[in-house]
Amino acid sequence: MSFNPLIEKIIEMKNPTVAGLDPKLDYVPQYIREKCFEQYGRTLEGAAEALYEFNTGLIDALCDIVPAVKPQMAYYEMYGWQGVRTFARTVEYAKSKGMYVITDGKRNDIGATMEAYAAGHLGLTDVDGEQIAAFGADALTVNGYLGTDGIDPLLKVCAAQDKGIFVLVKTSNKSSGELQNLPLEGGESIYGRMACMCDEWGKELPGKYGFTGVGAVVGATYPEQLTELRREHPSIFFLVPGYGAQGGGAQGLVGAFNKEGLGAVVNSSRAIMCAYKKEGCDETDFAGAARREALRMKDDINSVLS
Amino acid sequence: MSFNPLIEKIIEMKNPTVAGLDPKLDYVPQYIREKCFEQYGRTLEGAAEALYEFNTGLIDALCDIVPAVKPQMAYYEMYGWQGVRTFARTVEYAKSKGMYVITDGKRNDIGATMEAYAAGHLGLTDVDGEQIAAFGADALTVNGYLGTDGIDPLLKVCAAQDKGIFVLVKTSNKSSGELQNLPLEGGESIYGRMACMCDEWGKELPGKYGFTGVGAVVGATYPEQLTELRREHPSIFFLVPGYGAQGGGAQGLVGAFNKEGLGAVVNSSRAIMCAYKKEGCDETDFAGAARREALRMKDDINSVLS
Repeated sequence: MSFNPLIEKIIEMKNPTVAGLDPKLDYVPQYIREKCFEQYGRTLEGAAEALYEFNTGLIDALCDIVPAVKPQMAYYEMYGWQGVRTFARTVEYAKSKGMYVITDGKRNDIGATMEAYAAGHLGLTDVDGEQIAAFGADALTVNGYLGTDGIDPLLKVCAAQDKGIFVLVKTSNKSSGELQNLPLEGGESIYGRMACMCDEWGKELPGKYGFTGVGAVVGATYPEQLTELRREHPSIFFLVPGYGAQGGGAQGLVGAFNKEGLGAVVNSSRAIMCAYKKEGCDETDFAGAARREALRMKDDINSVLS
Repeated sequence: MSFNPLIEKIIEMKNPTVAGLDPKLDYVPQYIREKCFEQYGRTLEGAAEALYEFNTGLIDALCDIVPAVKPQMAYYEMYGWQGVRTFARTVEYAKSKGMYVITDGKRNDIGATMEAYAAGHLGLTDVDGEQIAAFGADALTVNGYLGTDGIDPLLKVCAAQDKGIFVLVKTSNKSSGELQNLPLEGGESIYGRMACMCDEWGKELPGKYGFTGVGAVVGATYPEQLTELRREHPSIFFLVPGYGAQGGGAQGLVGAFNKEGLGAVVNSSRAIMCAYKKEGCDETDFAGAARREALRMKDDINSVLS
């Protein structure tokens, strides 16, 4: 239960970041794509193989300096079940390299259906008595619009398996305020209410660093809300998208952390995956460029924390 | 664009229902499970094969009397990529039998990520110039918590491919009111606001029966809200879960329909899939029992509409 394993890795590596694995085919170096298309054709399978080779190269280059990866399900589903197979293999590979895996699926449903998502993504699936980890990630992003019925089944799996969830609270996108910022009667915002629900749900998953196993997604693009939510919800661990590519800078992240420098893991996807393009290095050095960008990001964030 | 193809099937079959394909392994007749486990072992693959055989039997029995099926992604993801392959094959099989397919994924994300979901589930995926339908459903359920950034990419795909989306508005579960019923400043509920956002988004997808391509999920378990939303949002087509198994009866559905008897498609999952258990017939007649229950449900709903 809770994010203890993630927080321990963050402390050990002195690096509160997570590398997003959102592999659009355009991000994959040409030489990998060509090799896979030659072998499998311009098919979903060929694309999925290219993504897998790209991902494993990135994981090899990052696993000793970055505590976690966050594969985004959409970029795997896009390539059909073949893409989802690459997702499963990527989770397995990252785990084998000791990385913490956050599946970004923003899943949501109720009762038995949410149990199915919880079993598939974080827990074990029962096949006539055999207990099998279908995807086996450590944490899952979820959407709380359906209320407690949609969260309870996750809490049970998280308690049994030492896993956590991140609930969407204040997302990083431009239109996130359309609904999330609306004031309820009494003045509280919808995202503020959602954070309070996270506090409630989190009581079932206490953690030893003061953070529960029910975290929140809060965008780096809204530093004011980051700071406000950190202050008002000290036991919610944050997953923070929007650093770098989406425009949020390290200075705006300060408010996400507590006095001990804990409280958040900051995501970067494209900036790491496509570092080789920005650097202009040879594309066969994509993994080296990713590592250099990950180290730069680590230093950037640590510089504002100390 | 819009739900024209679904509404045409509903009119033609005089049946405003959709059969949910939420195949928990427990629902699958023993003889199918045993055959698949013998061939593939007690594995994710064995489970996935059993689900596929069950699904195709149901589709064969329903395709001339029920306009649509609604596979629930969670029950496929639960069995890993092998389960997702069964999902893909199920969509393909249902389409080959002329059925309209609503993927119940409650997907949500922003920008390029939502584009990836839209391409994968409803549109076409580009693989180096090849345009491939990864899953190829007709409609997708989505969660609007992230606002317009999360919906716009879907609207583009729906417009290009004659597809639709159902946005979660007032869900059927017990705790749906925790967030959805909260009153905003001015008194409007959150679900009411979400319905207004659906109206806005729907303007881009007008349909010839007066309904746009942006529908709403509204639970049969809340007949008052069904009636209120039908009255205030005449151009939103409803996907209505919660009939039967979740306790909602046909009488409570009346408010979901307009004077022409249109406006909603009502889902039933377990009652159809597990009809053979309730009937107590031989399990090899599971498909016949599903058909009998589907006809009973059709008559039940039509009886309150006329």
